[in-house]
Formats: sequence, C-alpha cells, structure tokens
Amino acid sequence: MAVLLKDLITLDNEVFSAYAFWAGVLVIKMLLLSILTAIQRIKTKTFANPEDLMSKHQKVKFDNPDVERVRRAHRNDLENILPFLVIGFLYVLTNPSVGLAVNLFRAVGISRILHTIVYAVVVLPQPSRALSFFICLFVTVYMAIQVIFAAL
Amino acid sequence: MAVLLKDLITLDNEVFSAYAFWAGVLVIKMLLLSILTAIQRIKTKTFANPEDLMSKHQKVKFDNPDVERVRRAHRNDLENILPFLVIGFLYVLTNPSVGLAVNLFRAVGISRILHTIVYAVVVLPQPSRALSFFICLFVTVYMAIQVIFAAL
Amino acid sequence: MAVLLKDLITLDNEVFSAYAFWAGVLVIKMLLLSILTAIQRIKTKTFANPEDLMSKHQKVKFDNPDVERVRRAHRNDLENILPFLVIGFLYVLTNPSVGLAVNLFRAVGISRILHTIVYAVVVLPQPSRALSFFICLFVTVYMAIQVIFAAL
Repeated sequence: MAVLLKDLITLDNEVFSAYAFWAGVLVIKMLLLSILTAIQRIKTKTFANPEDLMSKHQKVKFDNPDVERVRRAHRNDLENILPFLVIGFLYVLTNPSVGLAVNLFRAVGISRILHTIVYAVVVLPQPSRALSFFICLFVTVYMAIQVIFAAL
Repeated sequence: MAVLLKDLITLDNEVFSAYAFWAGVLVIKMLLLSILTAIQRIKTKTFANPEDLMSKHQKVKFDNPDVERVRRAHRNDLENILPFLVIGFLYVLTNPSVGLAVNLFRAVGISRILHTIVYAVVVLPQPSRALSFFICLFVTVYMAIQVIFAAL
Repeated sequence: MAVLLKDLITLDNEVFSAYAFWAGVLVIKMLLLSILTAIQRIKTKTFANPEDLMSKHQKVKFDNPDVERVRRAHRNDLENILPFLVIGFLYVLTNPSVGLAVNLFRAVGISRILHTIVYAVVVLPQPSRALSFFICLFVTVYMAIQVIFAAL
C-alpha cells in the first residue's frame, strides 16, 4: 500500500476528524462513569478503602449492587471502547470510503452511549444492553480485519 | 531526532505494518474473551445482572470459578495488551531496526495468544502462564525505555 | 484545520516528545503494579488460581486487602491513564501552545505517579488520592474537548 499517513491523519480528512470527534466524546463518557461510581459510593455509603470512610462507625464494603452495576458498565467500556480507539485509528490508515467509515464511527459512538444509559443510568431490560454491546464489537472486529488485510 | 512520522507511519514501512497486523490480531483475540465470558455465563447460569436472568427462579451470582477465570484472563489483557498497543505505536516512531522490531511484535502477539490459551481455554500448569505473561511485559518495558530515550 | 500530522507527530515537535516521554513513563509505572500485585500475592499467600498454589495445603483466596488495594490502584490506572494516552495523542494534533501542552502532560504524569504512591505504596489519608486522581481526569476532559472542537 502506498498511501501515507500524512495524507490521512489530518483533521482535513473527514474520516480522521470523525474518528477524533467520537474518540473525544467516548473518552468523556467513560470518565463520567468514574464520577457516577463516586456518586453511588457516597449515596450508598459503600467505600472500598478505610481512608475513604467518612466516620469511624463506617466499615469498608464491596457488595453494593448499585455501585457494582456502574463498575461493571465501566469495565465493559474498558474492554470495548479502548480497543476500538486503537483499531479505529489504524482503520483510518487503510483509507476507507468516507461514507462507510464516518457511519461506522457514528454507530459505535451512539451505541456505546446507549450501552451506558441502559446499563448504569436507567437500567432497561434485555436485549437493549446486548444490542448496544454487539454493535461496537462487530464494528471493531470488522475494522481489525481491514487493518490486518491492509498490513499483509 | 529528525525522522518524521510521515516516513514511518505508513503501511509501506515493514515495522509499522507488523505493528498494525498484530494490533488487529490481538484486539480480535481480546474481544473473543467477551464472547467466551458470555458462553461461560450461559453454560453455568451465572448472571451478574437481574435483567440477564433467563427465568424467575434464577438469582444473580458472582462467584463461578469458570466465569471468573475468563474474566481474570480478560482483565490481564487490558492490563498488558492495551499499554503495549500504545507503546508499540510510539516505538515505531523511534525508527528501530526492522528485524528486531518485527520479531518483538511477533513475540508479543504469539505470547499473548498463548497466555489466553493456557489461562482460559485449556488451563495448563505454571510456569506456562507466567512465561507468556512476562514476554509481553518485558518487551513493552523495553519499547517504553526506547521511546523515553528517543523523546529526551 | 490545515495543520498536517507530518508537522506535529515527530519527535522534533516539543509537544509530541513531551507526550511520548510521559507515555513511556506512565506505561512502565502501570506495569509495575502487575509486579506489585504478584509480590503482595506471594507475601500474603493469596492466589486466585489453583495452578498458582505453591503447596497442596493452600486454597485459592480472593479477599486479601493488601492484594485488592494494589488491584484497585491498577484498575484505576486502566480507567484513567489509557484514555489519557489516546486523547493526549489526538491533542498533539490540535497544535496546542507548547508551554501549556508540555505542562499538562507533566501534571498528568506526576499526579498519576503520586496517585499510585498514596494508594498502593504508602497509603496516605484523603484527599491525597482524590486530588491526584482529579488532576488527570480534568486534564483529559480538557484535552478531549479541545479535540472535539478541532474535529468539528
């Protein structure tokens, strides 16, 4: 392949700016789950470290379902958004068609926001979480395959 | 250092395409652990969320050893593969010798696949998991040191 | 935006080399928590896998507070350092002022090292951990917003 990064990794490239836009949005979304965990910990008085306790009558606790739910949503982000961010960047370098690539980035961005909402904010019944989970997974696998073939 | 990225981050650069190839392979491998977790959850009827239960006689459970084993393997991937993917990219920019770099990427890729197999698929005795773990760790530290020195 | 990556992603760019330097340091710091976890596991004889047990009188254990503390510090790194590494790279592409960018990278690097020390090494009372945590969080959100605006 003869396409150079210099032609692709620039914010003038619509594919790359779509990637950069959704990377920014998704990272802020992920970090909000840290804040939401802290809110749930304070609301339910569930602290994992002795130095976090707010009075000497409290004890460390690990099993509050509301705290653990947010932590599972957060871990799911680590497992899915971070690999997507790496592969999405490399996918830009395969010089994909603009329309396809921009819509794939959009699909991942929106589906991961929905994943957080149905998992940790309002808690909707399945298959809402499963569907929002699989969109990002399938797109990331598709992009990874494109990267592998371009690299061969 | 006067080497520009435009000369290095292109799929024409053998070092970069080795990086991109193994990044694609390792991300797909990581994502398969999500699927394996789901398979183990269904097989052992171990669900962490009330909305995932498949009948009203089931209860949420967190302590199935087969599920937890896959989750530990997956977390180990997050702790090791993701930092490697960041540092591996920056290492390409230090313009390393092709033979060394390609073999380091290969060593990491193969050792992390073996790590998953011996940890979560067939469960082999130690030191198989420790060895496959340390290869990636040592290579990542080596590459990080090269990046630090190139950046100074 | 008309600035090309080729002008920015080079170790001649002071902003990019500050990013690369701290990326190398923070990745090594993260990986050291794997080693610290292993040390605490051996010291407290707390092993999560049957194949890790060192005699047949031992049993798997999951609840040692010293091991779990290091694991929480490590997970906090995954939640914060990895998103920072992605966004920090994209932030370089927004062509920020050198002084600001270099100091933000330095603030994140130093605060995450302090976070590990006060969480997992010497255990200092709050708000030492909260402060070191929020510096990285705020800088990452700031950089993500800059990336989003540059990408629009």
